[in-house]
Amino acid sequence: MIFKQLFEPDSCTYTYLLGCQETGKTVLIDPVVDTVHRDLDMIRSLDLTPTYTLETHIHADHISGGVKMRALADTKIAIPKMENIECADIGIEEGKVFEVGSIKIHPLFSPGHTDAHHAYLIENGAHTLLFSGDALLIEACGRTDFQQGDPALLYQTIHQKFFTLPDETLVYPGHDYEGRQITTILQEKQRNPRLKDGMSKNDFIEIMNGLDLPYPRKIDFAVPANLLCGKCPDNVPAEYRGPCEIFDRDIRRYLKQGDQG
Amino acid sequence: MIFKQLFEPDSCTYTYLLGCQETGKTVLIDPVVDTVHRDLDMIRSLDLTPTYTLETHIHADHISGGVKMRALADTKIAIPKMENIECADIGIEEGKVFEVGSIKIHPLFSPGHTDAHHAYLIENGAHTLLFSGDALLIEACGRTDFQQGDPALLYQTIHQKFFTLPDETLVYPGHDYEGRQITTILQEKQRNPRLKDGMSKNDFIEIMNGLDLPYPRKIDFAVPANLLCGKCPDNVPAEYRGPCEIFDRDIRRYLKQGDQG
Repeated sequence: MIFKQLFEPDSCTYTYLLGCQETGKTVLIDPVVDTVHRDLDMIRSLDLTPTYTLETHIHADHISGGVKMRALADTKIAIPKMENIECADIGIEEGKVFEVGSIKIHPLFSPGHTDAHHAYLIENGAHTLLFSGDALLIEACGRTDFQQGDPALLYQTIHQKFFTLPDETLVYPGHDYEGRQITTILQEKQRNPRLKDGMSKNDFIEIMNGLDLPYPRKIDFAVPANLLCGKCPDNVPAEYRGPCEIFDRDIRRYLKQGDQG
Repeated sequence: MIFKQLFEPDSCTYTYLLGCQETGKTVLIDPVVDTVHRDLDMIRSLDLTPTYTLETHIHADHISGGVKMRALADTKIAIPKMENIECADIGIEEGKVFEVGSIKIHPLFSPGHTDAHHAYLIENGAHTLLFSGDALLIEACGRTDFQQGDPALLYQTIHQKFFTLPDETLVYPGHDYEGRQITTILQEKQRNPRLKDGMSKNDFIEIMNGLDLPYPRKIDFAVPANLLCGKCPDNVPAEYRGPCEIFDRDIRRYLKQGDQG
């Protein structure tokens, strides 16, 4: 397997590129529309084929690169099935392995940040990799105050689905705002201020309900966009419009690169 | 490959257990004498065979478990060859792969913390693993004020041997004092206060020479012990003497466990 951790700095989002060496097939977990060209360039530079995009959930902080990637490179869009999203090509659900060539991705239903959030597990050599989306972040977790967020459910997800994995499990989060790349299950048990020292569910709920976070900068257009798999909605402000519009030049640029490659 | 990250709390040392699934052979990187029984129990519980111990360097903060492990379980002791240590069974050097069953360990000569320090590289699935010993720690690095430490050499080691590895390389340090388990090359480039923002060699030297650290608690007996592969030296104080003595009951306990297994 080929693995790349890619970063989108405006929303501090991690996109993960997994590539099957035998078949050349790839999946991009949580692609961001702003970095679609970079991600396609990366796939091409590794002699791989754009194949799938895969979402952990409907994001409120960035527009997905799903639709744009599909327009430029004919990828298939995979999204948790219970989102019931018309534009999706593939519905993901726990218990059904999602295969990308020889890569086997095990979806884990992990509600709490949103009601249909899924994390993804992969076995890779001696390690289990957990792509935790926004359910578990490094020394933090996703907020629970919008999109059917529920701190009690998130506590249950983290304890029952994640903290039962081996201590050495590598946790790759959906975001980090301080330049950290990775954590482990044991590290979060030991250091996450919302979970360590046997933090009770009630205390967790109190912390989450008291965070007093600002209203998300992009939520009003990002959620509608992501319900359309990343299609530019009418209400997107001019300063964010550029990346999610799909121009003929985008398609030409990508085709040209393909021809050169 | 089987992988376990084990922790010795008195010296905050990480011992790494790597096991070859096909042959059952194992190596313990940087075993601590205090936790030899735990490590042997772990190897047995995984249906593996104690085979090798491997040191990154001559430690000043703990006594190695090498000799005790060899006495109890007939393991071979591997130590960087340039240490010229008589009790070692195997001399490790850069350029010569050390094989543990199908596990290929690539030694990296990495002086600066000590003059003969070696780190170890392994390919594991999509990831490169770097066992960095005390040359690079999470947001820190080993001190350079004893055992032929040299901050200029350590800066060179980190930049030329480590920071040229792929960004996603998983870095497993020899110690952490705050419950962190893992870092990556990119994370250290971005966050290590002694290295980030293009820190110059001169600034690094100034930081290292100004650390003003306390005299190491165990150095006066740990270094002599480790030059004997972990044999209890005469000058070890009573409160540290227990673990490094090898009693008949230790051997009996281990044999008994083996019989039961």
